[in-house]
Amino acid sequence: MTTDAVKLTADLIRCPSVTPAEGGALKLLDDLLSSAGFDCTRVDRGGISNLFARWGQKGHARTFGFNGHTDVVPVGDEAAWTMSPFGAEVKGGVLYGRGATDMKSGVAAFAAAAIDLVQGTPPDGAVILTITGDEEGDAVDGTTALLDHMAAAGERMSVCLVGEPTCPDHMGEMMKIGRRGSMTAWFTVTGVQGHAAYPHRARNPLPALVRLIDRLASHEMDQGSDHFDASTLAVVTIDTGNPATNVIPAQGGAAVNIRFNDLHSGVSVTEWLQSEADHVAKEFDVAIDLRVKISGESFLTPPGALSDLVASAVEAETGMVPVLSTTGGTSDARFIKDHCPVVEFGLVGRTMHQVDECVEVAQIEQLKQVYARILRDYFA
Amino acid sequence: MTTDAVKLTADLIRCPSVTPAEGGALKLLDDLLSSAGFDCTRVDRGGISNLFARWGQKGHARTFGFNGHTDVVPVGDEAAWTMSPFGAEVKGGVLYGRGATDMKSGVAAFAAAAIDLVQGTPPDGAVILTITGDEEGDAVDGTTALLDHMAAAGERMSVCLVGEPTCPDHMGEMMKIGRRGSMTAWFTVTGVQGHAAYPHRARNPLPALVRLIDRLASHEMDQGSDHFDASTLAVVTIDTGNPATNVIPAQGGAAVNIRFNDLHSGVSVTEWLQSEADHVAKEFDVAIDLRVKISGESFLTPPGALSDLVASAVEAETGMVPVLSTTGGTSDARFIKDHCPVVEFGLVGRTMHQVDECVEVAQIEQLKQVYARILRDYFA
Ligand SMILES: [Zn+2]
Ligand SMILES: [Zn+2]
Repeated sequence: MTTDAVKLTADLIRCPSVTPAEGGALKLLDDLLSSAGFDCTRVDRGGISNLFARWGQKGHARTFGFNGHTDVVPVGDEAAWTMSPFGAEVKGGVLYGRGATDMKSGVAAFAAAAIDLVQGTPPDGAVILTITGDEEGDAVDGTTALLDHMAAAGERMSVCLVGEPTCPDHMGEMMKIGRRGSMTAWFTVTGVQGHAAYPHRARNPLPALVRLIDRLASHEMDQGSDHFDASTLAVVTIDTGNPATNVIPAQGGAAVNIRFNDLHSGVSVTEWLQSEADHVAKEFDVAIDLRVKISGESFLTPPGALSDLVASAVEAETGMVPVLSTTGGTSDARFIKDHCPVVEFGLVGRTMHQVDECVEVAQIEQLKQVYARILRDYFA
Repeated sequence: MTTDAVKLTADLIRCPSVTPAEGGALKLLDDLLSSAGFDCTRVDRGGISNLFARWGQKGHARTFGFNGHTDVVPVGDEAAWTMSPFGAEVKGGVLYGRGATDMKSGVAAFAAAAIDLVQGTPPDGAVILTITGDEEGDAVDGTTALLDHMAAAGERMSVCLVGEPTCPDHMGEMMKIGRRGSMTAWFTVTGVQGHAAYPHRARNPLPALVRLIDRLASHEMDQGSDHFDASTLAVVTIDTGNPATNVIPAQGGAAVNIRFNDLHSGVSVTEWLQSEADHVAKEFDVAIDLRVKISGESFLTPPGALSDLVASAVEAETGMVPVLSTTGGTSDARFIKDHCPVVEFGLVGRTMHQVDECVEVAQIEQLKQVYARILRDYFA
């Protein structure tokens, strides 16, 4: 008897696990994996619940790891949904609900494949699942809490597969071997307030601000690298909030969001931003304050054994040769890359975070087959 | 017996005439001027009260006009005042209260001088006072209402003196013979919203906005003209209001305030702004909407008989040779310039619109002497 990944996905969707609520999702997995012989530990931190599960010997040199999340983003405009967000209804071969693609189906597919594996011909090795309840939130008490727990407990994954949706349109077309880094920088320019009729008596911060932002926005950071697209800088907001058209304001601010590849680091980008700010501050005789938040450094698991393993399983099951991509937003792989080689493969993510999020039932089955083949090949 | 300009100023200060309230100020002048033989008409429009007063024959070829206002700006932070804003207290030879400099003292000084004149040796000519209650407000139902009334009634001033404070620091140092024009322009740049990680899929309006504003702010409109300072452009606000650092906004806006001299007009400046906006819109493939509000065109009463008359009276009474200036914000002279030659002279305006607004008692007396001499010389 094999484990039903579709039923498991539906059961997980029925758990209302909007971050930070656990919603019963981790308990469900805990019970299921425990009864299949997995050693399960709930890792709770900062009001977030996470699940660590291992089958096989602790510290085994061949330990296949999986990372996924059961928390989901809020429903949003519930009136706009035509299906129940936590109803897990199936219509025309499609399963509906929040988390259907991102990523209760991925967690269910891997859990089902892993249970089938260990209940069939048990491999010479170990399988670890790290399931976080804080991927859609701040991600500070999720995968990092699990990795901290593992370090303290002497637990180790040899490699790790993250089950996030990775395919833009067609099942199997893309996997991820890294991500660009991500950071946001806030600039505040301070001058001297004054009357608009006498600009020479004031020191307007806004001409300096637009010059700085123009320079940053016009700058080509790079043209991409071997495995990465070009780094990008997006100006996300510029604000003054001055309602008086006859007043030159004392201050103005702007924020830019930067996605940088492996030619840069958070520190090197910050140095560049600071030097541009200093230059403009001097040019315009104003003060420019820079504050940065680095959400994640860029990382890469270079093409090799792990990506070959996943890519050939994907090709065998879907007929598609997956592109080894580093595009997209950030994921929890950014934490795992310091622990072991990590790649990501999952299904088509088109409806993630949207109204009427849904997944084709057949795609869950196919994903389970891909994951099962990856496990078989890994332990072969 | 002469009319006491200081007492009249104090009486006017005690009238709480914050725009649009008349506060009893115009009634007081109406009564006073009527009993001195002036023909007084209250010109009310749009909830605003104004006063038209003429002594002498209607339509006389030598009609000296005066323009001033009795409305005042709000008290502001009343707790910050050390004197009563409508108390008209005198301390150390200084009279305190809202409107003390701007410009109840100017109105009182001219009214007193005019009454003394007509009650002394009546001149061969006429004197008109146009006193508005809407100078500090929108100014749409004040001086323009008085000029409309005059046109309908066949009333005409040969020349006009506006009694606003014109001296920066010392009594007599400056008079005004014109003003720069004033306008505000609002730009709205519209692109296509998107995710900050995929800027190529969005069309960010902000790089276009900063390029446009940088071009406008860096442009030298002119280097001044014979009687005018250089035109100026002040960027007063840039706003987006996007709280999400991972979202490229669909829209951003900015406002610039422009003070332009007689080398430009509201139309020519608008044409320049539109052409810069069109250029950037094309460059960045975004839509840029331009909206302008022209508060006043530049104007000039070229140095000549009227400015000579005023300047020599100022010099005779104060010992200072007044500079013929066109600096500063706008004034109601911008409406009068289409009616007759107009110049402005008043006292030191340092405390206008401020907490503890005040005027030296001696300066009111001196201003009345200047106005009296101007009237004498005009009718001589
Ligand atoms: Zn996800
Ligand atoms: Zn005034």
